[in-house]
Amino acid sequence: MTAKTDFQPAWTEKPPAKKSYRSVFKWGSPDEFKHPSHAWYQMLKDTFGMTDADFETPRFEGNEPVTIDQKIRLTDKQIGHITDIAGKRNVAVDDFSRVKYSHGKTIDEAMELRRQMVRDVPDIVVHPRNKKDVAGIVAFANKEKIPVYVYGGGSSVTFGLRTPKGGIMLVMSTHMNKLLVVNDINQTAVVQPGMMGPAYEAALNSAPEKFNAARRYTCGHFPQSFEYSSVGGWVVTLGSGQASSYYGDAYDLVLSQEYVTPAGNFKTLDFPATATGPKINDMMKGSEGAFGVLVELTMKIFRYMPENRQRFSFMFPSWDAAVAASREITQAEFGMPAVYRISDPEETEVGLKLYGIHGTPVDTVVSLRGYKPMERCLCLGTTEGEKGFARHVRDQVARICKSNGAMTLTGFAMKLWEKTRYKEPYMREDLMDYGIIIDTVESGVTWDNLHRLHQGVRAYIKKRPETICMTHASHFYPQGTNLYFIFILRMVDLDEYQEFHKGIIEAILQHGGSISHHHGVGKLFAPFMEKHLGREQMDILRALKNHFDPNQIMNPGGHLGL
Amino acid sequence: MTAKTDFQPAWTEKPPAKKSYRSVFKWGSPDEFKHPSHAWYQMLKDTFGMTDADFETPRFEGNEPVTIDQKIRLTDKQIGHITDIAGKRNVAVDDFSRVKYSHGKTIDEAMELRRQMVRDVPDIVVHPRNKKDVAGIVAFANKEKIPVYVYGGGSSVTFGLRTPKGGIMLVMSTHMNKLLVVNDINQTAVVQPGMMGPAYEAALNSAPEKFNAARRYTCGHFPQSFEYSSVGGWVVTLGSGQASSYYGDAYDLVLSQEYVTPAGNFKTLDFPATATGPKINDMMKGSEGAFGVLVELTMKIFRYMPENRQRFSFMFPSWDAAVAASREITQAEFGMPAVYRISDPEETEVGLKLYGIHGTPVDTVVSLRGYKPMERCLCLGTTEGEKGFARHVRDQVARICKSNGAMTLTGFAMKLWEKTRYKEPYMREDLMDYGIIIDTVESGVTWDNLHRLHQGVRAYIKKRPETICMTHASHFYPQGTNLYFIFILRMVDLDEYQEFHKGIIEAILQHGGSISHHHGVGKLFAPFMEKHLGREQMDILRALKNHFDPNQIMNPGGHLGL
Repeated sequence: MTAKTDFQPAWTEKPPAKKSYRSVFKWGSPDEFKHPSHAWYQMLKDTFGMTDADFETPRFEGNEPVTIDQKIRLTDKQIGHITDIAGKRNVAVDDFSRVKYSHGKTIDEAMELRRQMVRDVPDIVVHPRNKKDVAGIVAFANKEKIPVYVYGGGSSVTFGLRTPKGGIMLVMSTHMNKLLVVNDINQTAVVQPGMMGPAYEAALNSAPEKFNAARRYTCGHFPQSFEYSSVGGWVVTLGSGQASSYYGDAYDLVLSQEYVTPAGNFKTLDFPATATGPKINDMMKGSEGAFGVLVELTMKIFRYMPENRQRFSFMFPSWDAAVAASREITQAEFGMPAVYRISDPEETEVGLKLYGIHGTPVDTVVSLRGYKPMERCLCLGTTEGEKGFARHVRDQVARICKSNGAMTLTGFAMKLWEKTRYKEPYMREDLMDYGIIIDTVESGVTWDNLHRLHQGVRAYIKKRPETICMTHASHFYPQGTNLYFIFILRMVDLDEYQEFHKGIIEAILQHGGSISHHHGVGKLFAPFMEKHLGREQMDILRALKNHFDPNQIMNPGGHLGL
Repeated sequence: MTAKTDFQPAWTEKPPAKKSYRSVFKWGSPDEFKHPSHAWYQMLKDTFGMTDADFETPRFEGNEPVTIDQKIRLTDKQIGHITDIAGKRNVAVDDFSRVKYSHGKTIDEAMELRRQMVRDVPDIVVHPRNKKDVAGIVAFANKEKIPVYVYGGGSSVTFGLRTPKGGIMLVMSTHMNKLLVVNDINQTAVVQPGMMGPAYEAALNSAPEKFNAARRYTCGHFPQSFEYSSVGGWVVTLGSGQASSYYGDAYDLVLSQEYVTPAGNFKTLDFPATATGPKINDMMKGSEGAFGVLVELTMKIFRYMPENRQRFSFMFPSWDAAVAASREITQAEFGMPAVYRISDPEETEVGLKLYGIHGTPVDTVVSLRGYKPMERCLCLGTTEGEKGFARHVRDQVARICKSNGAMTLTGFAMKLWEKTRYKEPYMREDLMDYGIIIDTVESGVTWDNLHRLHQGVRAYIKKRPETICMTHASHFYPQGTNLYFIFILRMVDLDEYQEFHKGIIEAILQHGGSISHHHGVGKLFAPFMEKHLGREQMDILRALKNHFDPNQIMNPGGHLGL
């Protein structure tokens, strides 16, 4: 263990230089930061055998201005036509726009941009004003066989925005970002796909003032990327929010969708249920821009009742006990908690450090009561809904946790988690400034395969020396859950990183997990799709692709493995 | 009003003659019957201006033995090959088999069979023993371009079993009717598609004895056709059970499916959730045999806790009040009731007669308290799940009903309903013996369009003199419900009936309803599909059809409107 010192790295508090590489890859707001706690800093030094000296000089910060030498391959006539459709102010061909709107937040992208490396960019960036603009551009692009890509909030961690074939990038969040209708009777909202999470939620919360609605509503979808992701993005990548155990995944929240595709434009039926053949609405979910452009959604919304929210946290003696209790909670039919997550022993220790509980009297009491480090497991959650329902679910959760040996930590740890729920991604810039990577993979899994998957993937990650691997289960269903693996390692070589990452996905496949629970496929997981689904099912997706997009202009270049 | 007499028609108590037309169209068990109550009999006479004399002689009973003159168009060699695959005992070419397995329970079919009219039949009926038989037959049929149809429980009311192109009928319920696995950990069941509702439910209820399981389970799916429908049929036609408001529709109950198709055989992923592109599992639901043959399912199952069931019934002063209360119940987020239904004024009156409440002291009390006939509306339901949850939902339902002016009828009316929940269809034979038709249509609808749809469809039906039209809402969602129209009329001419029925569907379309909520599409609703979905969405279904079935052998002849 390294000697404890009072030294703290000079974590950057400086917003990235305007139009710099860093301004592209930095998570979130330019002037917002979250730095590792002192306990985390100690942990990093201990784990990686680093000293204070290693944290004196940040490297590859990427503050240089973006410049590229990729030629624009569209003709002036084509650009002119596109400009005629969308308006001059909504078309950009400058270097920065072309780079910014073709990059998401995948670790690999940050590693490259820090080194001023840019692969593919679109020829032109277009900010459509409405459905008509989109329809006009897609029709023109289809005629001229120009590739079309779609950008929502830009938070993709699967190379979802890469443009290997150049062409047009449609940015949906510039103009097509409005809440159009709040329907009190059906409890639905008609929303444009480029609306960002906070704006959408704020508009629903203030529905009486803004839409003359009878009530306040909530969207029910709060992924960690909430602040920097769009409603359309949630749906086309099959996202899942932190309260999904109660509200459902993005998949469940969509009543109907309107699409512009090369094969025609349509709006799906918006009945709460129909038996009129295979459901088109569901076929389009998860299509990630490869079938067409999502231009409008009718979403289910929920009554906004934060006053009914109940918070709980527990410490389990072991992972087995935490899993057993969680399965009982999801299957016992008293309703589901909203946020609900259990951390494995390693994440529990790291989390206690992250939330600042480590070394406090709470930590002491928990330890004294026999909940041992590297055995004990933290459980956090909330319940929502009508007041009596929320209380009943909380009481039942508590009963089941206790009967599985857990001690209550009251709502304390939950409140700490809520404070930083959207802030953790900010830490990745701090770490990467000193050659440390923090990244995640996640995997849907049935209950009967949870332990095998957890152990198998963890074994692969931990086989690498000096690698932290935290795991939690979140997003619960009666039939299973999602395992979230967060790994931290010291690494600066991209090839080495990609090799390691590929090994994780292969370990997931080998141990029977889904290759993505809620981050979509993009071009990162695309190479694994055929192995995961099998040829016959990939052929079904290909048949749909060929129907919608015979000229292969929609998000071309291997998206979804097509 | 006709004079009351003690005369009762001699409703048939005789099982249909073996291998007769009646044995094909009669609902349910050959020796089970449910006759109209005396109050109903009076109602029929009053409504249709009939007298006891009209009920003295049943007509067109269809007890003649089935004979057909449709030639078998398959060659001996083809039949020999099919026989080699499935075994001699599992292949039939006799007249009765060919008729029985190509007819469901659509009113039109009964009208024709009563007159010894048979349209299309398959050339050969095959009872496959397992997936391998199905795969062999589909591969052979695809090579030889022989049509393949699929028969489950035979309860279709949408011409789901019609075989306009002849060929092979696969009967799934003869051998492929087993529960294979009960998975306690995941709460799932692996089941063959031909298993009938009661056998499936009984096996789940006795899972500890039969599968060494830790608990008893329930399937959660109880359509009115429960006793004569198959698990596979529920899924491929998108059925919905009477307790769907709590358990979900068949759509929601399917974790994964295995299919045999001309384009290859596959089993979909069985993760509780994934973000790996558009979900193949969901694309296959509702495909009604037009894409391939469903050969195995993994279904979600639920803990069997009948001891927790709470029953309630209420009388509302008006339809508006009943609808308002129901919307509040579905949107207030305390959980959903299981069975839940509200009857409009006409159905309430007819229902009181059906359940034998009419004229009893209960009826008197309700009337005295100001709930007026042809204004008041009956509400019935149950709650299920964990004990505290079921009680809390019941209490909240009661609170909301009362605040909307309803008086409680305790669990009384609900218990009467439960007694006959699967028996009502038996009455159609009694009525048809005397030239009276009882039939239903149903339609998914959003809350904000419920009254318009109800009034519009009702106006069309009631425009015809001497026609009873009962409506209830059942199958509830936060965004809407399903309206069930039951109509009774005196009619013997098939063309006249089809014209009238077509008008109802057009009235549904005109007033913004779904053309099917839970009976599927079949060949009955197929002609309306393009108008309902639009060309672009029909083209998507056609693209899938062409992918799976390039030779157009799967359920050919217009199914799903393809």
